[in-house]
Amino acid sequence: MPNTSAIPVASFTDEVELAGHIIDSLLLPKVLDAIMSQGGRFEILNISVGQRRQDPSAARLLVTADSTEQLDKIIRDIGRHGAVRVDAQDAQLVSADLDGAFPEGFFCSTNHETQVRIDGTWHRDERPEMDCGLVVRNDRRAGGVSPPVDPNIDTRTLGSTGRPTPPARRTVETLPMCDVRKGDLIVVGHHGIRVLPQERDRDRPGVFGFMQSTVSSEKPKNFTVREIAAEMRRAREGRGRILIVAGPAVVHTGSREHLSGLIREGYVHVLFAGNALATHDIEQSFFGTSLGISMESGGGTAEGHEHHLRSINRIRRLGSIRNAVEQGVLTSGIMFECVQHDVPFVLAGSIRDDGPLPDVITDTLESQAAMRELIHSQGVTFCLMIATTLHSIAVGNLLPASVKTVCVDINPATVTKLADRGTFQSIGLVTDVEPFLRVLVDELKTKER
Amino acid sequence: MPNTSAIPVASFTDEVELAGHIIDSLLLPKVLDAIMSQGGRFEILNISVGQRRQDPSAARLLVTADSTEQLDKIIRDIGRHGAVRVDAQDAQLVSADLDGAFPEGFFCSTNHETQVRIDGTWHRDERPEMDCGLVVRNDRRAGGVSPPVDPNIDTRTLGSTGRPTPPARRTVETLPMCDVRKGDLIVVGHHGIRVLPQERDRDRPGVFGFMQSTVSSEKPKNFTVREIAAEMRRAREGRGRILIVAGPAVVHTGSREHLSGLIREGYVHVLFAGNALATHDIEQSFFGTSLGISMESGGGTAEGHEHHLRSINRIRRLGSIRNAVEQGVLTSGIMFECVQHDVPFVLAGSIRDDGPLPDVITDTLESQAAMRELIHSQGVTFCLMIATTLHSIAVGNLLPASVKTVCVDINPATVTKLADRGTFQSIGLVTDVEPFLRVLVDELKTKER
Amino acid sequence: MPNTSAIPVASFTDEVELAGHIIDSLLLPKVLDAIMSQGGRFEILNISVGQRRQDPSAARLLVTADSTEQLDKIIRDIGRHGAVRVDAQDAQLVSADLDGAFPEGFFCSTNHETQVRIDGTWHRDERPEMDCGLVVRNDRRAGGVSPPVDPNIDTRTLGSTGRPTPPARRTVETLPMCDVRKGDLIVVGHHGIRVLPQERDRDRPGVFGFMQSTVSSEKPKNFTVREIAAEMRRAREGRGRILIVAGPAVVHTGSREHLSGLIREGYVHVLFAGNALATHDIEQSFFGTSLGISMESGGGTAEGHEHHLRSINRIRRLGSIRNAVEQGVLTSGIMFECVQHDVPFVLAGSIRDDGPLPDVITDTLESQAAMRELIHSQGVTFCLMIATTLHSIAVGNLLPASVKTVCVDINPATVTKLADRGTFQSIGLVTDVEPFLRVLVDELKTKER
Amino acid sequence: MPNTSAIPVASFTDEVELAGHIIDSLLLPKVLDAIMSQGGRFEILNISVGQRRQDPSAARLLVTADSTEQLDKIIRDIGRHGAVRVDAQDAQLVSADLDGAFPEGFFCSTNHETQVRIDGTWHRDERPEMDCGLVVRNDRRAGGVSPPVDPNIDTRTLGSTGRPTPPARRTVETLPMCDVRKGDLIVVGHHGIRVLPQERDRDRPGVFGFMQSTVSSEKPKNFTVREIAAEMRRAREGRGRILIVAGPAVVHTGSREHLSGLIREGYVHVLFAGNALATHDIEQSFFGTSLGISMESGGGTAEGHEHHLRSINRIRRLGSIRNAVEQGVLTSGIMFECVQHDVPFVLAGSIRDDGPLPDVITDTLESQAAMRELIHSQGVTFCLMIATTLHSIAVGNLLPASVKTVCVDINPATVTKLADRGTFQSIGLVTDVEPFLRVLVDELKTKER
Repeated sequence: MPNTSAIPVASFTDEVELAGHIIDSLLLPKVLDAIMSQGGRFEILNISVGQRRQDPSAARLLVTADSTEQLDKIIRDIGRHGAVRVDAQDAQLVSADLDGAFPEGFFCSTNHETQVRIDGTWHRDERPEMDCGLVVRNDRRAGGVSPPVDPNIDTRTLGSTGRPTPPARRTVETLPMCDVRKGDLIVVGHHGIRVLPQERDRDRPGVFGFMQSTVSSEKPKNFTVREIAAEMRRAREGRGRILIVAGPAVVHTGSREHLSGLIREGYVHVLFAGNALATHDIEQSFFGTSLGISMESGGGTAEGHEHHLRSINRIRRLGSIRNAVEQGVLTSGIMFECVQHDVPFVLAGSIRDDGPLPDVITDTLESQAAMRELIHSQGVTFCLMIATTLHSIAVGNLLPASVKTVCVDINPATVTKLADRGTFQSIGLVTDVEPFLRVLVDELKTKER
Repeated sequence: MPNTSAIPVASFTDEVELAGHIIDSLLLPKVLDAIMSQGGRFEILNISVGQRRQDPSAARLLVTADSTEQLDKIIRDIGRHGAVRVDAQDAQLVSADLDGAFPEGFFCSTNHETQVRIDGTWHRDERPEMDCGLVVRNDRRAGGVSPPVDPNIDTRTLGSTGRPTPPARRTVETLPMCDVRKGDLIVVGHHGIRVLPQERDRDRPGVFGFMQSTVSSEKPKNFTVREIAAEMRRAREGRGRILIVAGPAVVHTGSREHLSGLIREGYVHVLFAGNALATHDIEQSFFGTSLGISMESGGGTAEGHEHHLRSINRIRRLGSIRNAVEQGVLTSGIMFECVQHDVPFVLAGSIRDDGPLPDVITDTLESQAAMRELIHSQGVTFCLMIATTLHSIAVGNLLPASVKTVCVDINPATVTKLADRGTFQSIGLVTDVEPFLRVLVDELKTKER
Repeated sequence: MPNTSAIPVASFTDEVELAGHIIDSLLLPKVLDAIMSQGGRFEILNISVGQRRQDPSAARLLVTADSTEQLDKIIRDIGRHGAVRVDAQDAQLVSADLDGAFPEGFFCSTNHETQVRIDGTWHRDERPEMDCGLVVRNDRRAGGVSPPVDPNIDTRTLGSTGRPTPPARRTVETLPMCDVRKGDLIVVGHHGIRVLPQERDRDRPGVFGFMQSTVSSEKPKNFTVREIAAEMRRAREGRGRILIVAGPAVVHTGSREHLSGLIREGYVHVLFAGNALATHDIEQSFFGTSLGISMESGGGTAEGHEHHLRSINRIRRLGSIRNAVEQGVLTSGIMFECVQHDVPFVLAGSIRDDGPLPDVITDTLESQAAMRELIHSQGVTFCLMIATTLHSIAVGNLLPASVKTVCVDINPATVTKLADRGTFQSIGLVTDVEPFLRVLVDELKTKER
Repeated sequence: MPNTSAIPVASFTDEVELAGHIIDSLLLPKVLDAIMSQGGRFEILNISVGQRRQDPSAARLLVTADSTEQLDKIIRDIGRHGAVRVDAQDAQLVSADLDGAFPEGFFCSTNHETQVRIDGTWHRDERPEMDCGLVVRNDRRAGGVSPPVDPNIDTRTLGSTGRPTPPARRTVETLPMCDVRKGDLIVVGHHGIRVLPQERDRDRPGVFGFMQSTVSSEKPKNFTVREIAAEMRRAREGRGRILIVAGPAVVHTGSREHLSGLIREGYVHVLFAGNALATHDIEQSFFGTSLGISMESGGGTAEGHEHHLRSINRIRRLGSIRNAVEQGVLTSGIMFECVQHDVPFVLAGSIRDDGPLPDVITDTLESQAAMRELIHSQGVTFCLMIATTLHSIAVGNLLPASVKTVCVDINPATVTKLADRGTFQSIGLVTDVEPFLRVLVDELKTKER
């Protein structure tokens, strides 16, 4: 434990601002927490707390550290919770010197709304995604319309830097590392960047927005299911788009009719899954089994794993799932409904795949790109992840923080990992897949009448 | 690894017999496994395998060990899988020298049917229970009718010792350690004892009798639920008696209406639970919450844990749950239905109890005795354990191996621990409590029509 | 979702104060959270935030609700996070009308420091424990010295009520429900009560005090172990008292030498366990096995569960563990060391016990009372809970929030349940028992040199 | 439940043989189990049980079913446990009609030794792998040396078909579905195929060969670790080759020095991992953190996830891990040791990868092919899987049943899934990674002296 020594320690300071619902969205506590756990100190120079719950608050802090390096680390860390240096500068841009890698010191993106200051103007990244870089492009679209900063921002007390953006010729975009091309203008360092963390939704409080994001197996879940159903109805009515990420347990727990029904009824706008889900689904259509387990009697059948392989083989012989549907070979199930209702899907490959099905994208970077593209082109606003750790984590990495996510799994470890995205927009539900989907479908039907 | 040495090792041998469906009920493999893992060797002197699946088989083995002590251990160990010494002797009886403890060397009971040879005659223990001792009593009942050995036993090739029991004046009883009284005649050693392990039910194969006893969260469970429902219907029609062991999660997952309904409909003959289940149930009746969580909205209410305590306090003020029902204070729920339908219950105390309710038996030995008494006086044949580790293990310890048990929990560790009783009579189901009970109730209703 | 209706809703308001490190100890966010989740509204009338991290802060809120009942609920709920009504009144006292139950409306205690206002003076409950009631006694001790309110409290901006307590003749005590005696003066309602939640320790930040209290299996744990060792050394040096709560896995994972060593070296001041831990420990001393599993070879031995029963039986024959030690029958292990080093222990009974050992307290209320007594008479400041759900929860219920607790288990569910006590004083560690104890012992030895 | 009806049911029968240690290796019980659970019946026509434990046994069964289809299913199913039709025919070969898919009806391979009868002669598949097909190639190698059937087989009572193989011009090979090329001669149906399931090792009984393959968290593990160490020493001395499959938790639990040491000391012949393990390892070398968590203090550092990305980026800038080592940029850790000691590795890509590192194979089929190639070219005999579900399952799918595997994970679900390969060669260990590796390393060092 550090003792107070007689030798004066040089100290380095910086002033930051924080705005929004900084108390109940936990921004201020998180910032203070981060400063202290990095060994820094703070003074709250100024705090104005909204009197009513709709009112935003703001705080100005003096952060002190023992070295420039430590101060730098602290500033970078608290920047992720929305703390912005008071004396904003322009962001630093460096040209990529080779393909497929950033310049050293590149800014690592978060999944929250992020703005970059270029020539004194804040530009918003339209597709926030964590763990990428930011590239600044010139005049890319016709007319060079740079995304205007959200006028709501202006209500925040972010100082004079928050003024409306003049028509600019620059756009800021999220850039995955593997997509860097030599010459790309990459944002470096952490100056001139502000992150606006997703806040708690105070107007429609519900299951989203609890401080504790995981609904354990020991809590009543009906209320949560009702909220999920409400979100899904809103989406079907046009106020949102639903992405389902599903693991094979959806089939082998006997739940595929539930998911097929959701697709048929228009509750699914995009489906992400892997070879296993699609194969189990097709196996059930072809043989009435899932990995050789009869979906009727629960007993193992003679062929065990064979049905699985024969199903893949049969689709491979036909060239694609769509071909199998069109030739009348595949006539039911999740993949059938996707084809029938033109629900776009990505089947992403993994090293434990048998076969795989011809529709599976075996290259993992291509899979990521395909998912990323659909998330944004489809405008996904709500994501339901069911019984898959690998795909849920992968998709969670790609989603903006503004997308509401629900992760359902019987394994608390998976749910905790997924729900713990540090936002009030994601919840986890520890429950069994089949009954969850059954109750969800019932709930959706009830309200339809 | 022991090296083959030049010095000859003395060897000790014994001959044992084994009968029944020794191959597919895994008795023979288990016996061979036990001999080998104890460092012994075997020769199969004789084996006759039933040609058809109904036919019993028999084997005679020569067991060899390096010391008398080792041999003794092996014989004792394989005795638990039904292997009996060929040269049967009478059991050794020793008079207890003090209260509350057995003489050294006492025979430790299993939960399988066990017979003790006294004066050349085999006597059956009528209430097998694991981890107790066996006491021989004289002429206890009027007429001194000793339980006759089941005639089915005679079909087994257990040698000439299996002959019909003449009217005797001795009974063999299971005796818990704390119930020993000075002078009790206790069975000591392992001679003159034969264990008849519960075999796989070949006539009505179903979920009971699989080699793998745990139904994981990733398997379809509807078939298993159907089988459980079938067992419960049989019991309600008079061919069995049902014991439910339930933990508090039955209430706080929102499932109490399901269990209340089962009691009302006559599917529950005995209920074992703890203070928590009963209190949560009563709290829901009084306040609509469970541990302060609203069962309607899923949200926490102001009083948090207080409702829990206030419910206990209110019942304590009335003296008992029955009083609360009779005075019209408690008008719904699990405990209410038990009182209304005269379903006997034991609420066993634990050190984490608040209160507790006045009906809770705070002494753990008294709780065990009360449960033991009900198991046998009610003739329990089927036991459904739901969402409770402590009570499930406690009850599992008390039940004869012949009682079919189903353990339902969302935690695989609990299910594995419980299902792994080494018999084909117990299965575990990894699933969420609420939907399990909901589907079970639906299944029972469907078939009623 | 409630719609804004034209009809004006009557609203009810109250003013509360909050003091301490209300932002980074999360008191204010929790209070706002609770108000909102109860459907209430708030205005922050006044907030003063300490400029430096040592400085306390204070806030005054106007809470608004739609009904007196709702307001009441909110006030009660936020009272648990330290929010106190501005216009403090005396607490209401009601005389108990019967033994073993509180009057309706009794105040339910928390495990945080709690003060009760009587005749305008605040009295502190010296033994805070959750889920009990509070009794006011007159002049109980010689001289009637009522505990003076901690002078530190005066630094808080709690208004004029915080003045020094004059020598009074009243004491406030925690009272378990079962200990109520007719005529006891019980605190009723929630007026005149203030709770001072345990705050984050800012001076010695370490593993205690993180916002996330559970250290998952995927994090490096060496640092946490080092902190635990530091706490234990401080206690051995006289600045604390250590309670160990241990489950049987301590023995059957092969860790008993580690725990025995801790006792021998003076790192254990009190031990709480059950019949299973003590029996497994004694079995290992007597037979070298734990539940029949050899601690040397890991293989099962012939007698299986028998050693377990024979060990209990042998101790029962001798009358007590102490007798077994004194007669030279028990010469090693955890219980032996406790006897040798006069470490007081409670072996609390449970319904899954075999035997039990003669030292086991079979009545659960007596067990609680015995543990409660030792916690306070020994002045426990640090509690290490290892591999036991039942005992950990039971002990967790009894401990004041000021006791630092560490819960170690390989099952994340147990750890989460235990660590989630809502204070910064408790952490959970998901890891394997044997290596945890081994590393802890190594760490303690290293620093001894 | 099937009722006995008056109408005679046509029945279909087949005779099968089974040889080896059919009782204690559970082959016969499994075969009977499979017949019964498929609704078939059996008669044991003949059984000869080896008198001593070294002696093989044999049985001949008459299997009866209600339809040809059912009989066929049963025969196929029990074939996986070694039951072979008495009247052996040649295998049926069909020419593949297109690339990348088998003809319908192809034989699905197991991971046990498999022989195919062609022109009356049994040919052995040298690289058994589950869930593939079998291709028959002509004269592929110089001299057309077909693998001779193991002479040990002849000791089995498999009838006259077991005679020595004459020099043939055919080889049988495992063929993954995606590698089928038009014209390949594929084995179809299940005639002329015999599977010789891996038996229990009776000569060196130890942790491998228990009936229960998972070592739970509640068992002493030291003995198991000692056995693993013994296997690893044997391999280092030239009697085996060790494959390590490792997940990122090896690094972020603070265990990388243990694994690095094992590589340095020659205990690792092949390493399979993913992008995450390698990146965490490199991040620790570059920054002293793992996913931003300091490996020294356990605390989070400012940059959080950034170090992870910067590490990948830096290696991408250098082109490969080997380049980074050779240029002195990467100077410690797991990947460094692999490069230094020429231990071949496969880093298989997954969709949750950041970056990835340039060495990662992003195509999943290429990853599988690379792993398959190394398994066989390196002659892997022992596989230790640590803390990775995805990679463990993927590798488990590729390994022959003869490879001893140990799966270590703190999550029982992962361990159960992996250990449950139906062979006596695989065990699972539920424990924490860091201490497991620490103890393993200690054990290996101890014996080295």
